[in-house]
Amino acid sequence: MPAEYAPMFSYTVLDTSSDTGARRGILETPHGPVETPVFMPVGTQGTVKAMSPDRLKELGAEIVLSNTYHLYLRPGHDVVRGLGGLHSFMGWDKPILTDSGGFQVFSLGELRTITEEGVRFQSHLDGSRHLLTPESAVEIQNALGADIIMCLDECTAYPATRGETQSSMEMTLRWAERCREAHTVDTQALFGIVQGGMYEDLRRLSARKTVELDFPGYAVGGLSVGEAKGLMYDMAEIALEELPREKPRYIMGVGTPEDLVNLSALGADMFDCVMPTRNARNGTLFTSRGKLVIKNERFKTDERPVDEDCGCYTCRTFSRAYLRHLFHSGEILASIANTVHNLAFYLRVISDIRQAIRTDTMKQFQKDFLEKITGENT
Amino acid sequence: MPAEYAPMFSYTVLDTSSDTGARRGILETPHGPVETPVFMPVGTQGTVKAMSPDRLKELGAEIVLSNTYHLYLRPGHDVVRGLGGLHSFMGWDKPILTDSGGFQVFSLGELRTITEEGVRFQSHLDGSRHLLTPESAVEIQNALGADIIMCLDECTAYPATRGETQSSMEMTLRWAERCREAHTVDTQALFGIVQGGMYEDLRRLSARKTVELDFPGYAVGGLSVGEAKGLMYDMAEIALEELPREKPRYIMGVGTPEDLVNLSALGADMFDCVMPTRNARNGTLFTSRGKLVIKNERFKTDERPVDEDCGCYTCRTFSRAYLRHLFHSGEILASIANTVHNLAFYLRVISDIRQAIRTDTMKQFQKDFLEKITGENT
Repeated sequence: MPAEYAPMFSYTVLDTSSDTGARRGILETPHGPVETPVFMPVGTQGTVKAMSPDRLKELGAEIVLSNTYHLYLRPGHDVVRGLGGLHSFMGWDKPILTDSGGFQVFSLGELRTITEEGVRFQSHLDGSRHLLTPESAVEIQNALGADIIMCLDECTAYPATRGETQSSMEMTLRWAERCREAHTVDTQALFGIVQGGMYEDLRRLSARKTVELDFPGYAVGGLSVGEAKGLMYDMAEIALEELPREKPRYIMGVGTPEDLVNLSALGADMFDCVMPTRNARNGTLFTSRGKLVIKNERFKTDERPVDEDCGCYTCRTFSRAYLRHLFHSGEILASIANTVHNLAFYLRVISDIRQAIRTDTMKQFQKDFLEKITGENT
Repeated sequence: MPAEYAPMFSYTVLDTSSDTGARRGILETPHGPVETPVFMPVGTQGTVKAMSPDRLKELGAEIVLSNTYHLYLRPGHDVVRGLGGLHSFMGWDKPILTDSGGFQVFSLGELRTITEEGVRFQSHLDGSRHLLTPESAVEIQNALGADIIMCLDECTAYPATRGETQSSMEMTLRWAERCREAHTVDTQALFGIVQGGMYEDLRRLSARKTVELDFPGYAVGGLSVGEAKGLMYDMAEIALEELPREKPRYIMGVGTPEDLVNLSALGADMFDCVMPTRNARNGTLFTSRGKLVIKNERFKTDERPVDEDCGCYTCRTFSRAYLRHLFHSGEILASIANTVHNLAFYLRVISDIRQAIRTDTMKQFQKDFLEKITGENT
């Protein structure tokens, strides 16, 4: 980023919680404002699975995440740029965040090699060979044109030794600097990413060094990779402590409804996760009283909505018995209806969190929420 | 039907075309009115594939068809009745028509045996054995509770000898009489079905004998089963000539957009076909300039909507390039967006037909439509 780099992007804290670390704020982006804490539905291939843009808006989604790796391979970032960028391509005129592509590339296992230069990998679609560098990750995201873009980082494996974690974290820092250098588009805010695995001092060091690079926002990566829940919260808390309060703080790839509540209470502002959409397609529905597995025999003649506390289209329109029928019949409407409900649930949880912060009742809200959601809905 | 049987159902002709056999009318049903000619989207398993009820209403669908065979096997007609009937079950408060289940059972081939009593068959789902009789077809449809229900008929094979066709047609007449006897629910209108294969005199005889049984509406079955288009039109025309003008006339399982125009011009009032929904899922889109196969390479960077004459959600929101990307990526939104467009196209064609009848320009409309739609859209 050149010295005069001034992203069309700002973050303002509106309210802070007196008895937790939570805060409510507003992100201003070229495609409009986003209230935080915010949950970003995941639209891997330029669409949130089973959703149309109008349906997403009805649900109150304010920003979606899309995956650079997938769009780079298909249809190609040049195609997306030629069609006016990702917003125009996917018919979504609200904010978008793209990841760097790194996480998906690292997940390729045998198909990739990491060096200081970047990551060489083979496409999971056709085996073609590619090189993703900090510079190309920025260039591809510039072509896609999301409002928020991410530095290429290395998601440290879990478990990893202290030495491995430190080397990986340091390379992520060097890559962050290269990304910063490569990024010059002021309609996009480039976020830095904190790594450091499960080592407290490395997390702190990573956070401090990333903050020195002065990004308009920061993410915490490398969490929810197999570690115990308590450890995940500890690492998130440490990173959040080190990140400046005047900047948005994004916990990547997390998590359950409980995670959204607990991490918001620690001061996190942004979340993304495939859990609501993927579980929907597998027939697992989130409710205020716990999960509900819609295929179960006991719902065969159950006239009730999925969640009696929910006012989403699915709960207003369909019985559990009908949803069970759709699921067993392999109907597309099963995926649609279940996704509508799960996203509505996630978006309501995050909206309830904002309301609890606004009224300074976050601590009580957290306690009540965690008590109620335990167990399975029957 | 007992002597006092008075279905809550009526049909009124509103306009007739002076230079074709077309007419515009209105069906009154317990779930509201339906303007004819009408196209009924097919919701085989209690859902029009890839659609939600609200989306179907937005598209202007006035009535949907659902398949008795599928709902009888899963979730079972008793389950549907227990949940308040098919309207309540599928969240659709407008009219519904169910078929008798016969067509699907006959399609099972080796898995079924037809006798005077009815059809013995094995479920395609689990191999379980069942008997479908004229009486049980009515009973199942009574449990489902559609506004319009159909007599169990035998869809004559094609090709078939004159002897085979006559025997089959005569059994269908005897079954129609048994259905009529078995049906006593006055919130449902039971339609008779004309068979007679590809033999003009048998079609006429079937129509006359079915009309003698005095149903509130009539269907023409056994068409579009492999015969040449000209022969299909000839057989439809013969049957339509014999059917009373004061009753609705339904051509079952037909057809292409051209068929809707041509058969409406012959005086048909109702149509159903899986073509728009099935083709949508296969990536074939109907337009006013012919079909468009969305997967083709030439649409890779095509910014245009599917059909520049179409105002549907898909055409307002997505480019051909995006729809191609969704299709190749196997995204559920491909099925949703393509189905929205194809149903919008079919429903607009049928609405244009009604308008042409209203303004008495049906002959000219038919000529213009057939000229324009020929060929492939590029």
